[in-house]
Amino acid sequence: MSTLPENQPVDMRWDGWGDPARAHGLPGGVKLLLTAMLGRMPKAPPAPRLAEVAISTPPLPDADLAALATAVGAAHVDTGHDVRLLHAGGKSTPDLLRRRQPEQVAPGAVVLPGTEDQVAAVLAVAGERGLAVVPFGGGTAVTGGLEPAAGPHRGVVSLDLRRLSGLVALDDVAHEATFHAGTRAPDAETALAERGFELGHFPQSFEFATLGGFAAMRSSGQNSAGYGRFDAMVTGLRVVTPTGTLDLGRAPGSAAGPDLVRWFLGSEGTFGVITQVRLRVHPTPEARLFDAWTFGDFATGADALRRVAQLGTGPTVIRLSDEAETAVSLAQVGNIGKALARGCSAVVLHEGPADLAAARREATTRVLREAGGTPAAAKLAAAWDHGRFRAPYLRDALLAAGVFCETLETATTWSNLHALKAAATEALAAGFADERARNRILCHISHVYPTGASLYFTVIAGLGAEPLEPWSRVKSRANDAIMGEGGTISHHHGVGTDHAPWLEWEIGEAGIRMLRAVQAELDPAGIMNPGALMQRTVG
Amino acid sequence: MSTLPENQPVDMRWDGWGDPARAHGLPGGVKLLLTAMLGRMPKAPPAPRLAEVAISTPPLPDADLAALATAVGAAHVDTGHDVRLLHAGGKSTPDLLRRRQPEQVAPGAVVLPGTEDQVAAVLAVAGERGLAVVPFGGGTAVTGGLEPAAGPHRGVVSLDLRRLSGLVALDDVAHEATFHAGTRAPDAETALAERGFELGHFPQSFEFATLGGFAAMRSSGQNSAGYGRFDAMVTGLRVVTPTGTLDLGRAPGSAAGPDLVRWFLGSEGTFGVITQVRLRVHPTPEARLFDAWTFGDFATGADALRRVAQLGTGPTVIRLSDEAETAVSLAQVGNIGKALARGCSAVVLHEGPADLAAARREATTRVLREAGGTPAAAKLAAAWDHGRFRAPYLRDALLAAGVFCETLETATTWSNLHALKAAATEALAAGFADERARNRILCHISHVYPTGASLYFTVIAGLGAEPLEPWSRVKSRANDAIMGEGGTISHHHGVGTDHAPWLEWEIGEAGIRMLRAVQAELDPAGIMNPGALMQRTVG
Repeated sequence: MSTLPENQPVDMRWDGWGDPARAHGLPGGVKLLLTAMLGRMPKAPPAPRLAEVAISTPPLPDADLAALATAVGAAHVDTGHDVRLLHAGGKSTPDLLRRRQPEQVAPGAVVLPGTEDQVAAVLAVAGERGLAVVPFGGGTAVTGGLEPAAGPHRGVVSLDLRRLSGLVALDDVAHEATFHAGTRAPDAETALAERGFELGHFPQSFEFATLGGFAAMRSSGQNSAGYGRFDAMVTGLRVVTPTGTLDLGRAPGSAAGPDLVRWFLGSEGTFGVITQVRLRVHPTPEARLFDAWTFGDFATGADALRRVAQLGTGPTVIRLSDEAETAVSLAQVGNIGKALARGCSAVVLHEGPADLAAARREATTRVLREAGGTPAAAKLAAAWDHGRFRAPYLRDALLAAGVFCETLETATTWSNLHALKAAATEALAAGFADERARNRILCHISHVYPTGASLYFTVIAGLGAEPLEPWSRVKSRANDAIMGEGGTISHHHGVGTDHAPWLEWEIGEAGIRMLRAVQAELDPAGIMNPGALMQRTVG
Repeated sequence: MSTLPENQPVDMRWDGWGDPARAHGLPGGVKLLLTAMLGRMPKAPPAPRLAEVAISTPPLPDADLAALATAVGAAHVDTGHDVRLLHAGGKSTPDLLRRRQPEQVAPGAVVLPGTEDQVAAVLAVAGERGLAVVPFGGGTAVTGGLEPAAGPHRGVVSLDLRRLSGLVALDDVAHEATFHAGTRAPDAETALAERGFELGHFPQSFEFATLGGFAAMRSSGQNSAGYGRFDAMVTGLRVVTPTGTLDLGRAPGSAAGPDLVRWFLGSEGTFGVITQVRLRVHPTPEARLFDAWTFGDFATGADALRRVAQLGTGPTVIRLSDEAETAVSLAQVGNIGKALARGCSAVVLHEGPADLAAARREATTRVLREAGGTPAAAKLAAAWDHGRFRAPYLRDALLAAGVFCETLETATTWSNLHALKAAATEALAAGFADERARNRILCHISHVYPTGASLYFTVIAGLGAEPLEPWSRVKSRANDAIMGEGGTISHHHGVGTDHAPWLEWEIGEAGIRMLRAVQAELDPAGIMNPGALMQRTVG
């Protein structure tokens, strides 16, 4: 049938990250560093071209397509080979490695509703005809939340929200903005900037992800110290479920029973489709003050960040690389392999009206200095800012060069931070050792709270030409170690299908039953994103 | 059977607020003011003494009591006349008015579990024997959440949590404290103060309410601008349900599916019994800097508060009385009737380490001054602080003098604040007019958020000798007006049985189904607090 409509955002590279025009090879310095760290890598086999890939799952039969066409119009039901593969999964390293296989699975059709009513109509058709529905925003998921899994159903519809895009309303008194859920984050920021506002949610997926995706996955952005996780920004949601539409979030600070907005944040498309997001925004900051700091070691730096978070001095960004990450300077793509700093480097940003930003910076500076920090060249912070969305492109270059690269993350209390970091690092190292894979394990803190912080690990390893299964074993050990040491299975990547086996460890058997009960109520046929979040039960 | 154990906290006055020793009559100035505002009131008929009240609901039969005794020990199952009446409801004005009736309903027994296992055992006994369970913390509920309603069951057990009290653990690195849920707030603050910490949750019920009650009701305290609603303080919960125990809140900032802690905050005892609460705490503030301000009118003052909330200058308390409340100075019990200030008065508090508190105060002061505020005598703020927990005692004196007095509250966005205030005020005034009741309607903002604020109304009226039904009609109109104008049915009093008929308006039909689905999963027999939060369905 049709191809994707014009005037729609560029799809990401189908077998890698982001804008194909921005793909690059490995910088020479990185190659040298990699060889020093990991030895010579076998060149990865060339990836197949998109047109060459066979799809093992058939497109939906004509009767299904005709029914979906009544819901969204024939022009917005797509079974094209390329379009189906572009909706076949997310952007985790295993996702990208599976894109190198000659035969792949893909949804049976991609539908593009243009209104909330059309979303409801798609769910009705899917329910009647026994089709699973996988909501698709920017396609940046990294925990398997976009798997085209039919579960017990006949086929899979990928429900692409790109046509549900744009600013619905801005309340410039209440500082609230309402967007259609398929709005990509840069488009939201552009629309807000024209009106003097900013959302300030900048996860690494920022350039491609959608606001609905942030909500469904409980995303956390790099400016979370200042503006909070996406959870904290959401003041209201509209959600279409197979059994009805919800309009949630009547007022700030309600005590009218449990906060149902929070029941959908993190629901990962399993209860319904988020169609609108109402968000707290703030005036475009007048001042943006970057600073870089150095600490003698990670423990000293982490303690300094803790003091800042607990005193509430008010940084927008505060992040700390451990010794290994500082040395490799992976955070500064382009400079990688050059500046092998000692100790641990930190980046701090203060924003706001000029006077408040300056006062906040002064307060943070005093705390960091008293905690043993040394100011470093501010250009290091500017370099981080400049390169903050580039790491996924480097991953593509690494994978192409036969170097396995992936990230994983968790969070815990400040008091448990070092035990958790050690346990996760040891599990990863032991796992790689069992696979006989030379490796480097880098870590940083990028999100702080009064009671704790996140830990974000980047691993690079020589896992050979078939890294999928070895990595699955290593990751499984890391997950066990994280849970065993009191961490959460995810701070911001979410659960998806990859972490679903660990969710019961996180929330208990009764917690799983609560999720299933809500799912069964809102989606009795179980058509919404089967297998994500909760593991499929047998039968 | 037995009476309540020794060494337990003092019960509140059974037919009024708080410590019986602190009850007082109407100050002379208040009497004069009331006569000027409302005319002469008919003296209320004297209330019956506790021992004189007949209980229309029988105590539980011996077989039930024996089974409960196996769960908690015979010494902790109480069917004494006075104890049952002390657990017969909360402390709303209608609750207190019903205490004047010669015959009253009460739970069939009061049980006092001493461990979490005993809580589970009580729920098991209740489930097996067809008894409803009403969790009872401090007994300060004001929306009917403690009604001894059997629903379809044979009788009602009041599950008093006072023996589950005390600090479990303090993590002085992560700034987290774990308490048993039955801990009263002052006891929690005492335990924390001994260790250099503070929780900082001071709702008007502070002196008697429990931490578990705060969590179950989504309480909001007077220091919410600085430390957040109770929601924001809770980092973990343990909950015993009829089908299993949950231990929630593994890590700050998790994205491991929806935040199940939030599914229990506001659950009002309908899903299970909260047995432990883990809370974010902060070091005891070094400085507490009070300020009072005056604004020409409520709109100017509200706009000033909005700017402070949106800039995040960091006050701990910021509240604004409207013209009527300022004039009556109800906030300053004792001075009532004296200082009839013009315009609108505001109270501001900044706390923290001395340097940070001073910097925050300076930032707030700049904003308030630019927004049209005028500094007022700081002793007005000190007077508010001194009298902050006294208003409920004044209500008792008013009720005894035949003056109806009650409070209600809501919240909305800053942009909708004045329309909502006008709509609620008009509905109250029209309702009182229809009842031919002279009245005064006072209002203040006591909780601010970047996107909106709460509105807290105090009404005093001459509703005659039988005010229950007239007030029910007036309140119902006010609720309709609040919902019709986009407010929430409660900012911090909760839903209980009183607001349950309005909850579907707030969260929709699908929202109600979500709550019921979770309830049915965790409590399939429906024994937990029937009628609170969700209306009982017929049959």
